[in-house]
Amino acid sequence: MASDLAPLIDHTLLKPEATAADVERVCAEAVRYGFKAVCLNPYWVSRAAGLLAETGVTLCAVAGFPFGASRVDVKAGEAAHAVADGAGEIDMVVNLGALRSGDLAAVDADIRAVRAATQGVLKVIVEASALTEDELVTATEIAAGAGADFVKTSTGYHPSGGARLADLRLIKETIEKTGRAETVSIKASGGIRDLAFARELLDAGATRLGLSSGVALVEQERQHA
Amino acid sequence: MASDLAPLIDHTLLKPEATAADVERVCAEAVRYGFKAVCLNPYWVSRAAGLLAETGVTLCAVAGFPFGASRVDVKAGEAAHAVADGAGEIDMVVNLGALRSGDLAAVDADIRAVRAATQGVLKVIVEASALTEDELVTATEIAAGAGADFVKTSTGYHPSGGARLADLRLIKETIEKTGRAETVSIKASGGIRDLAFARELLDAGATRLGLSSGVALVEQERQHA
Repeated sequence: MASDLAPLIDHTLLKPEATAADVERVCAEAVRYGFKAVCLNPYWVSRAAGLLAETGVTLCAVAGFPFGASRVDVKAGEAAHAVADGAGEIDMVVNLGALRSGDLAAVDADIRAVRAATQGVLKVIVEASALTEDELVTATEIAAGAGADFVKTSTGYHPSGGARLADLRLIKETIEKTGRAETVSIKASGGIRDLAFARELLDAGATRLGLSSGVALVEQERQHA
Repeated sequence: MASDLAPLIDHTLLKPEATAADVERVCAEAVRYGFKAVCLNPYWVSRAAGLLAETGVTLCAVAGFPFGASRVDVKAGEAAHAVADGAGEIDMVVNLGALRSGDLAAVDADIRAVRAATQGVLKVIVEASALTEDELVTATEIAAGAGADFVKTSTGYHPSGGARLADLRLIKETIEKTGRAETVSIKASGGIRDLAFARELLDAGATRLGLSSGVALVEQERQHA
């Protein structure tokens, strides 16, 4: 039975202690379940590119992850290397410190530099749970204006939490206000571990889900079908 | 009153949402309390270099932090940029995934590349709480052999925890077995929030402590003097 959910899932393995065997497992799972993409740390991208070639599964690499507190040239360089290694999508972390310091030009320049490093899909992680509503609106506006294809809610590694419906709704409303709703989508990620919550996030406007528990969720979906 | 502890403290501000005002505060605190160093994310290094010039406080930058899962050239490039920006010490994260996959040549090459990027002090973070005892021994041996000045216990951001006495003792024993105890020291970091634990870590062989609560600990020290 085909899954409605699988084509929306970035099958995600970002814990730093993940091994080559773990990478091989998630790539095989992504092919078997028909996930949209596999999302990995940069070190693993060239290996995964070989595993996913000709499978139809997109390879997604993070850049400046999970802190986003690198220099702009280092973050953009990391993205460019990942693209050269075979990544079709880049999930970058916004410069949260610059954002919260009000240095919005730096936030914008940081995203634009990574945007210039890839012709593929760019997702900008705003770490919504660590921000005030005003900061989240600002981050979303800057990301949309700087060429992001997706605004992504969370890294999944910040102590303040992961995906939240209220954040997602504010991101959606903000994107609509910028007039870029046709080109800027939303990826929800971080702590999404049950099917009901995944569906709520999709209903609220997410069109991509970052999940480390994608296999379990698709199996739940099958049981409830 | 002079503090015994202050010259051993890396005053640490690594949370990704830290602002320019936070950076200015920790630099001022480091000068006032006589801390050994200020430890920051790369984005803030050039700013802090101006604040700490001529103060006697060392500037320490992290590289590949906190995951260590970057490509070797990106991690080494991040360190080189931090050195150019004014960092006298580099705290790099070991490639945990390569280590746990048994690709020890990659772990070694990763450290040597960062070693080559700085003539200053290099600390290699092994994220001890995420490793088995065997993995911790291996990581310590490789770091000592590859030119680390310090083996550092933890990033402080891994869910498995921070500094632990048992890990520190195993690191110390391993360094002694390599015959490099004269040149390789130990930095304990991650979750060190009270004076008694800080003293235990020093008694067990640490000669540097990474603390975000250094001011509170030195104030406790004064009250107990």
